[in-house]
Amino acid sequence: MASVTVGHGTHDGGQPGRLPPVVPRVVGIVGAGQLARMTHQASIALGVRTRLLAAAGDDPAALVAPHVELGRASDIDAVVRFGRGCDVVTFDHEGVPQPVLRALESTGVTVAPGADALLAAQDKAVMRERLGALGVDGPRSAVVADVAAARAFAGRIGAPVVLKVARGGYDGRGVWLPGPGRDVPELPRSGGPFDAGVPVLAEERVDFVRELSALVVRSGSGQAVAYPVVESVQRDGICVQTTAPAPGLDPRVAAHAQAVALRIAGELGVVGVLAVELFQTPDGRVLVNELAMRPHNTGHWTIDGAVTSQFENHLRAVTDLPLGSPVARERWSVMVNVLGGDVPELAGCLLHVQARDPAVRVHLYDKPVRPGRKVGHVTVGGDDLDGLLARAWHAADYMAGRING
Amino acid sequence: MASVTVGHGTHDGGQPGRLPPVVPRVVGIVGAGQLARMTHQASIALGVRTRLLAAAGDDPAALVAPHVELGRASDIDAVVRFGRGCDVVTFDHEGVPQPVLRALESTGVTVAPGADALLAAQDKAVMRERLGALGVDGPRSAVVADVAAARAFAGRIGAPVVLKVARGGYDGRGVWLPGPGRDVPELPRSGGPFDAGVPVLAEERVDFVRELSALVVRSGSGQAVAYPVVESVQRDGICVQTTAPAPGLDPRVAAHAQAVALRIAGELGVVGVLAVELFQTPDGRVLVNELAMRPHNTGHWTIDGAVTSQFENHLRAVTDLPLGSPVARERWSVMVNVLGGDVPELAGCLLHVQARDPAVRVHLYDKPVRPGRKVGHVTVGGDDLDGLLARAWHAADYMAGRING
Repeated sequence: MASVTVGHGTHDGGQPGRLPPVVPRVVGIVGAGQLARMTHQASIALGVRTRLLAAAGDDPAALVAPHVELGRASDIDAVVRFGRGCDVVTFDHEGVPQPVLRALESTGVTVAPGADALLAAQDKAVMRERLGALGVDGPRSAVVADVAAARAFAGRIGAPVVLKVARGGYDGRGVWLPGPGRDVPELPRSGGPFDAGVPVLAEERVDFVRELSALVVRSGSGQAVAYPVVESVQRDGICVQTTAPAPGLDPRVAAHAQAVALRIAGELGVVGVLAVELFQTPDGRVLVNELAMRPHNTGHWTIDGAVTSQFENHLRAVTDLPLGSPVARERWSVMVNVLGGDVPELAGCLLHVQARDPAVRVHLYDKPVRPGRKVGHVTVGGDDLDGLLARAWHAADYMAGRING
Repeated sequence: MASVTVGHGTHDGGQPGRLPPVVPRVVGIVGAGQLARMTHQASIALGVRTRLLAAAGDDPAALVAPHVELGRASDIDAVVRFGRGCDVVTFDHEGVPQPVLRALESTGVTVAPGADALLAAQDKAVMRERLGALGVDGPRSAVVADVAAARAFAGRIGAPVVLKVARGGYDGRGVWLPGPGRDVPELPRSGGPFDAGVPVLAEERVDFVRELSALVVRSGSGQAVAYPVVESVQRDGICVQTTAPAPGLDPRVAAHAQAVALRIAGELGVVGVLAVELFQTPDGRVLVNELAMRPHNTGHWTIDGAVTSQFENHLRAVTDLPLGSPVARERWSVMVNVLGGDVPELAGCLLHVQARDPAVRVHLYDKPVRPGRKVGHVTVGGDDLDGLLARAWHAADYMAGRING
């Protein structure tokens, strides 16, 4: 099954001349990066009004939206004050500390996803514990106090282990991999996982053939939709490419991955997007690698490639509107991230990229270009997967300055 | 041919480590209605920054964009001051007086479309004169000084005539139709066309079977694209429905209509969207009814139904970026306008509309609801045209309070 809808909208607007139900209209977003930027874009058609809590006035979303307050996501007073002007508060990232989330919830404003659910996306040790309790397949793992404990755990499971800080890692940061023939990572003298002041997780280093992502959206009243499962390609811990749907994926495995993601969303009480990043093993099984509870890079293809984008469905979920169709509009949709290279100004690249391929969809985040930084993405859809991959990579490579025409 | 691209992008970004060409980044939009709102939405992915000159702070676009100045489109000083902060100035409506456009152009800012081109969309007498000089088919017409002259013209052509104010009419306002068996309209004692202080055009009342719209986009360097020709349905002079492509339209007539629109855009030097509204006669010919030089209601379907929306292509045209593919993404796309009814608050309607049809695309303009006012539109695409029409009308009728479930 390519996409799934669970539950039905059952709302009725009432009688003619009716006073329609009051629905949340003002959605606050903590954080103003590219995810908030694309969420604001989706809010325009819905008639939802956004408010942003931005770290800086030139954050990607702050450049395109009218209601921007400056403040840090870790500042309880700033976040609580921000929440007072909103019907619902949601997030552009998972970096809002639990005490801030709890304080926000105590004011009575709807927080989506809520603090309890978010904890499982913020803390990998909690995530592993909760998924374990649900019986969801994942790498074997243990919280370890030092390298010796990690080595002992590796010996016990008979496999090499990666070390991860339980909190604060993202885009490949906070993860250490063992080198060839080693059971545990070699750590730097300082700045290693045990220096971060947070619990450290040792996880079985999974032998996987590829990475998949099962992205679902769940609304406050429990309706949920599942997008087609995609294949993602990571480089240095950063998502660089997705293909929707995942090529050659056994439909039973795809349906299982969607069911797992829907179950996690329901059991954890997620409201909004839940992205479940998965390893696919050589024998075809899927193991949960990471959870994200916000619009996710592996769902960017939905803007151009699905009937309803993940951003619109995130807004519909947090305002408890019925969810939109997650059905793919193309046989294949390929998304490639534009990572910063040596071209300082991306807008000029459009002259070549858009002239060469009038059907490529370019999304720029209006961020200063820095090497390796996510500064945009491109999407292209159609029937010829190899051609789509070549076209998307051409556009992204050109904007990164890696090719010249 | 369903869609047309004329010319090729020929830009080259240059060498590796290249300094890319500087492209316009700041687009000013005079007017902040729903067209500017949807243009701002399209600007977000392009990385273009908009500035709006709004009549009021709660205009539809002013509610969603960060850079809003308040001012009237007829105020030379306000418009010229506004233009100083922009690389290009474009428009949400055709109501900017020629002296204001000329003053703006004299400051050196790029104005797109330019004053010369816009005149043909602002003044129906000029439009008829220019199209006549190009040999484009239209209703026979003449500028008339009074009812007697209109009657004389009707007698000369042997057909009833409608009367139109040459300037300032829109959405059915400024047009008077003759009643059954009459050659000229019956006019009110006051407030008729001859009381408006502008030239009055008598136009042959065309016997047409339906209305079509050929929407094209032309960039500053002359590249142009043509969207599939659509059928539009008007009620009381307001577009209420479009079907893309126009059902049953002879491909030769469609290609001719596109060629006419591309020729008009080129000859008049239009930069941006040009919508050519057409009458189709019982013998299959097309006659030009009206011109609009801005994103147009008959192009709203392109947001969801074409690879590149009219709003994005308008921005690409005025910033002289290569134009995006105008190809339709669905066999049929049906757009129906949401006109205000007795439901004061549309957001609540989404509970029913979106639950009933998860694939309907709703676009709300966040305007106060008033009877008959355009407050949003819905689009739905697929293979079953009758089903699409029923679904789109259900959503629009429900939001107008005309049906109850």
